[in-house]
Amino acid sequence: MRPWNVVDMKKLINDPFDFVEESLEGFLLAHEDLVKRVGRRAIARIDAPIEGKVGVVIGGGSGHLPAFMGYVGRGGAAAAPIGNIFASPPAKPILEATLAANGGAGVVYSYGNYAGDVMNFDRAAARAKTEHGIDVETVLVTDDVASAPKDQVDRRRGIAGDFFVFKVLAAKAETMADLASVVATTRRANDYTRTVGVGLSACTVPAHGKPTFHLADDELEVGLGVHGEPGIRRSHIEPVDALVDEILGIILADKDYGGSDVAVLVNGLGATPYEELYIMYRRARQVLEGHGVGIRRSYVGEYITSLEMAGASITLMQLDEELHDLLAAPAKCPMFVQMGAARG
Amino acid sequence: MRPWNVVDMKKLINDPFDFVEESLEGFLLAHEDLVKRVGRRAIARIDAPIEGKVGVVIGGGSGHLPAFMGYVGRGGAAAAPIGNIFASPPAKPILEATLAANGGAGVVYSYGNYAGDVMNFDRAAARAKTEHGIDVETVLVTDDVASAPKDQVDRRRGIAGDFFVFKVLAAKAETMADLASVVATTRRANDYTRTVGVGLSACTVPAHGKPTFHLADDELEVGLGVHGEPGIRRSHIEPVDALVDEILGIILADKDYGGSDVAVLVNGLGATPYEELYIMYRRARQVLEGHGVGIRRSYVGEYITSLEMAGASITLMQLDEELHDLLAAPAKCPMFVQMGAARG
Repeated sequence: MRPWNVVDMKKLINDPFDFVEESLEGFLLAHEDLVKRVGRRAIARIDAPIEGKVGVVIGGGSGHLPAFMGYVGRGGAAAAPIGNIFASPPAKPILEATLAANGGAGVVYSYGNYAGDVMNFDRAAARAKTEHGIDVETVLVTDDVASAPKDQVDRRRGIAGDFFVFKVLAAKAETMADLASVVATTRRANDYTRTVGVGLSACTVPAHGKPTFHLADDELEVGLGVHGEPGIRRSHIEPVDALVDEILGIILADKDYGGSDVAVLVNGLGATPYEELYIMYRRARQVLEGHGVGIRRSYVGEYITSLEMAGASITLMQLDEELHDLLAAPAKCPMFVQMGAARG
Repeated sequence: MRPWNVVDMKKLINDPFDFVEESLEGFLLAHEDLVKRVGRRAIARIDAPIEGKVGVVIGGGSGHLPAFMGYVGRGGAAAAPIGNIFASPPAKPILEATLAANGGAGVVYSYGNYAGDVMNFDRAAARAKTEHGIDVETVLVTDDVASAPKDQVDRRRGIAGDFFVFKVLAAKAETMADLASVVATTRRANDYTRTVGVGLSACTVPAHGKPTFHLADDELEVGLGVHGEPGIRRSHIEPVDALVDEILGIILADKDYGGSDVAVLVNGLGATPYEELYIMYRRARQVLEGHGVGIRRSYVGEYITSLEMAGASITLMQLDEELHDLLAAPAKCPMFVQMGAARG
């Protein structure tokens, strides 16, 4: 073991350079009934691959649990490569995940739109095709409204909306739909999804030992990205109802959900208490009902985190009948369990 | 609304004095399919009371979500009174919860052993009997090894072990067992359960506006209570494997689980990333396997929090076949969903 040099970080860790490996080992031990390791930095659901089924691969950097590996399982993804903290997995574990997910019906990659991820996933997709004859399609998640203007949607990053898009994708694949249908439905889920977040504090990547950015003791930042990417504005702390009004104002100005059915996700970034997320949900519900939005499904909790960042985001996904039923379909994953409506 | 006076707290809240009411309102709106309000500060599962079934009432102060109201539902508690942050609910909401839970077969109260809770729950139990003829039995949770020595077990506080005891209690009641049987099984669950925690930082109760206690930037405290009650020792931050060894050493010295089957819970207090909890679980598994302990069920996540405290605890519950099956039984609660083994 390397020398212990992080006595100034308030973390329950050993050597910072062992963080990803040790958390992965613990995760696999805790969930050995649901997932298995298929590479040094890749896991798959225990029964993958499933013959004739589209393989679902999600992934990205570590530090975001339950994303990504917490969503591998029944009704979840078939496999996930695992990157270092806030860093894309290299092409090799992505390819390992692809092979583990491949049931002969093609594979869909879905992940947040970050340059490093796009480069590595594309490289793995090319190798999957040329070396293994596997057809790979990609659906980037681009829900973060604050990350690029409306006329540059393709530049937007993926944040908490990942959860909705992944859930729809995985449930669609469970229906044994073909590759083109799975991709079409997943793209629609992403097109229908918008998120805006607010950050209250930074987090510290163990191997760096310092906060990723700085927010003053009395500051917040609207639109902050999940790795500390700059947002829209900074200000003093404000009452959360005003922040929810602002967040939903930005979302509704980008896509008017009025008259539509939606799913709502209030997502905590790590250090924000669940009680505060429910306070946000309360106001979101008031605002959305006032705007004529029909709330059919609600999720409040930690779905995509950023280590110990304080802050939260609100995500809306427009629902048609298919998206509703796919989102509501049962799942049994290490960090997400949902009973089906029939048991509801 | 009272004047906005908390611009120096990094919280997503409105008026601090509205914190409990607003989070409760949001919670009820988000989970209206599962729970209902049965008093100003009391909730019940949507189908309570159930005729002929022992009513399960859990509760305590706010600030600990998912405990307590997150565990009301199918396979969970029948009802829960809700206190202010880190404060016992008064007798009135406890009585309201009792009436909502009462199916004519008696009611069991279970909660962490704190003086304020004991006083108010006992008062409500007396009123339930004299005013409504309801038989109430109480099982205090006393899992916190660090809170009192072995010869004073009755003085020990209840912390994360609450989750195991509540789950067993609720599942036993679901079997339609009679009051005496439900109480006996729940007491055994508590007798078999031990927890030790480690705290890295304090939290701030909104209405106070200041941290509940102080830990220096490089300090941790072993045995810290979930409201900041003093622990066993303070020291500089250490590698987490050493802390896990110490925690399990304390637990195993108090009750030797060697040769037994157990359930393990690694519980985060609020701000500690899930990745760190899995690193702790990894080491716990190594230590317990080396000690001849058989791990049959594992839970890693946030089950009983303390607002935004950083830190974690490890809980062991010895399992016999009945406790195993009750712990493994399905549940559909707002903040805890578990599929049954048959679907496993």
